Amino acid sequence: MTDRITIALDAMGGDFGPSVVVPAAIDFLKKDNDVDLILVGREEAIKQHLGQYSLSEHLRIHPASEEVAMDELPSRALRGKKDSSMRVAIDLVKEGQAHACVSAGNTGALMATARFVLKMLPNVDRPAIISALPSISGHTWVLDLGANVESTSDHLFQFAVMGSELVNSLDEEISNPRIGLLNIGQEEIKGNDQVKRAHELLNNSSLNYIGYVEGDDVYCGDVDVVVTDGFVGNIALKSAEGVAKMIAHYLKRGFKRNFFTKLAGVLAIPVMNGFKKKIDPRRYNGATLLGLRGIVIKSHGGADILAFNHAIKMAKKAVHTNVPERIAHGVESQLEKRVNE
Amino acid sequence: MTDRITIALDAMGGDFGPSVVVPAAIDFLKKDNDVDLILVGREEAIKQHLGQYSLSEHLRIHPASEEVAMDELPSRALRGKKDSSMRVAIDLVKEGQAHACVSAGNTGALMATARFVLKMLPNVDRPAIISALPSISGHTWVLDLGANVESTSDHLFQFAVMGSELVNSLDEEISNPRIGLLNIGQEEIKGNDQVKRAHELLNNSSLNYIGYVEGDDVYCGDVDVVVTDGFVGNIALKSAEGVAKMIAHYLKRGFKRNFFTKLAGVLAIPVMNGFKKKIDPRRYNGATLLGLRGIVIKSHGGADILAFNHAIKMAKKAVHTNVPERIAHGVESQLEKRVNE
Repeated sequence: MTDRITIALDAMGGDFGPSVVVPAAIDFLKKDNDVDLILVGREEAIKQHLGQYSLSEHLRIHPASEEVAMDELPSRALRGKKDSSMRVAIDLVKEGQAHACVSAGNTGALMATARFVLKMLPNVDRPAIISALPSISGHTWVLDLGANVESTSDHLFQFAVMGSELVNSLDEEISNPRIGLLNIGQEEIKGNDQVKRAHELLNNSSLNYIGYVEGDDVYCGDVDVVVTDGFVGNIALKSAEGVAKMIAHYLKRGFKRNFFTKLAGVLAIPVMNGFKKKIDPRRYNGATLLGLRGIVIKSHGGADILAFNHAIKMAKKAVHTNVPERIAHGVESQLEKRVNE
Repeated sequence: MTDRITIALDAMGGDFGPSVVVPAAIDFLKKDNDVDLILVGREEAIKQHLGQYSLSEHLRIHPASEEVAMDELPSRALRGKKDSSMRVAIDLVKEGQAHACVSAGNTGALMATARFVLKMLPNVDRPAIISALPSISGHTWVLDLGANVESTSDHLFQFAVMGSELVNSLDEEISNPRIGLLNIGQEEIKGNDQVKRAHELLNNSSLNYIGYVEGDDVYCGDVDVVVTDGFVGNIALKSAEGVAKMIAHYLKRGFKRNFFTKLAGVLAIPVMNGFKKKIDPRRYNGATLLGLRGIVIKSHGGADILAFNHAIKMAKKAVHTNVPERIAHGVESQLEKRVNE
C-alpha cells in the first residue's frame, strides 16, 4: 500500500447497485487526485456503467461473484455469501489492500460482516452507527442510529466516547464537542435506568458532557453529539424524515392550488431550493460504523450519485484522520480515568 | 349531576395559568351550550381574567389554594399538595361533580395524581398518553407519548387495545383503526424482545393489526394508531417537533434574503398559512390519559387560548363517547379471547 488512500466500494450494494456506485466513483475521481478507488463486484455489470471512462490504477475492478440482497438475513449473508461484493470489499480493508470501504447495502449484513471480519476495537463492546443531521445552527451528530436494538449504560457511555472522538477528528467545525444524552425530559427524575446510569458515567468522565437533551434539541444545534440506543435513534431519525416529507407534500400542494399560489410558487423556487440544499439528506449521506478495527462507511440504500459521492468523501476523511486509532485511544484513556477514580 | 356535561379545568396549570385557561373557557362556552365548566384554582387570580364575563351555573369557580409547579417532583405534588388546582380538579371527577378534567400542568404530577385518585381500569397495568398527530392523509394517533419509560410486551398490547378503542369511539373519520407497532424495520428479524413479543400478541388478537411500522409511517398516514413505549414515543414526537421548527426557521430566513425573496414571501403567505393550519400543533392539543377510571385530558404546558380550547373539546368528546367504559370493555373482550385460545 502506497501513501495514497485506497477505498473499496461495494459496487453491487444499495437499491441501484453499479448504476449509482460507478458514476459516483468516476465523479469523485474527477475532483480528487489523492484517492484510488476499487469497484468490488461483477465485472460485466460494473463495466456497463463506466461509459467513456477507462480503468486505471486509480479506478480498478476487484471481482466478486455474489451479492447480498437488501432484505437478506445478516446471518445468512455472513455464512452463505463469502464472495459477495460487500464481504470482499471488507476483506480488502482487513487485508490492508484498502484503507476503508463504502457500501450502500443491507445495514444488518454490513454490520455483522464488518464485525466478523474486522473485529471490534479493544474495550468496545458494540459497534454503533453515527451520522450528522442538519440543525438550525449547522449540524448535529447522532449515534447509535440502529446498529443495536438494546444498549446498557456502559454501551451508551462507549458510544459517547466514540462519538466525541469521531467528531473531534472528522469535523473541522467543532472542537471539544458538546455531548448530550437523549432523554424524555431534562429533569433528573426522568428516563429509564440505562439512561440514568449512563448519565452518571458521563458526568464523571472528562468528556464535554452537557447532560440530558430531548428529541427537538437534535435540530436546534445546542449540542454537537447526541447519544442514544439504536432503537430510539433510528425511530427518531425516521420520524424526522417523515415530518420533512409531510411538510414538503403540503407545501407542494399549497403552491398548486390556484393561479396566485402557482405564481408565488415560481417566485419561491430560489428560496425552496436554498432551503432544500440546506437540509438535503444527500449532503449528509455516509454514516460511519464506529468501534471496528477498520473504516466502514454505510451509504443510504436509496442514495443517488451525489449522495454516494458524499459517502466516499466521508470515507476519505475518516482514513485521513485515522478514526479507528483515535477512538481506540479515546476509549482507553476514558477507561483509565474510570479505573483511577 | 344533570344530563349536561361538566368539565373541571385546572385553571392554574401550564406555563400561563388562568391568563390562558379562563379566556379559553369563555371562548368555549360562547360556542357550546351543552357544557358547564368549573374553573379550579385561586378565586382572585381567576376573576382577574374573567373580563366582562360573569360567572353562572355554566362557568363557576371551585377554590383550590395551592398550585403544582411545572418542575415539581410528581411524588411531592401528590403527597404535599392536596389542595392544588390539579388535585382538586381530579377529585371533582372522582366525586362525580365533573365528567372530565383538563390540565396543562406538569405531566408527571398529573399522571401520578390521576392514577392515585381515579385508579386504573381492571386489567390495565399502566396508563398511557395518546394524541393525534398530523399526517399526509389526515392524522395518526400515537401512544404512549411519555407516561412510561419502559414497557413490557403486555403493556404494549394493552396500549394497542386502548388506542384502538379510543379511536373507535372518538374519531369519526376512522373506523376499525389500523394498528401498527413502532419498530426499526419491517423485517421480522428486527426489533428488541418486548417489541417482538408484542408483535406476536397483536398478531393473535382480533385487533386490526397491520404489523411493524417505522418512524416515518406516523406522518404518511397508512396507519391509524401507532403503538410504542413512552420513551420512544416521546422522543419521536419531540424530534418531529424539532424538524418542523428547523424547517420553519430556514424558510423564514430564506424569504428574508433579498427583495425578490421577500416579494415571493408575501405572495406565499396564503400557502404558508394554509399549511401552518394543517399541521398547527394547537389543533392537535389535548392528549388523553388512557387506562384510568375517569377522563383526564392533558393540554400542552405552553398551550395558548386556541390550543386549550381544543383540549376542552377533546374532553367533551371523550365524555360524550364514554371512553373509559369502552376501553374497559375492549380490554376485557381481548383478554377473554386470549384465555379462550
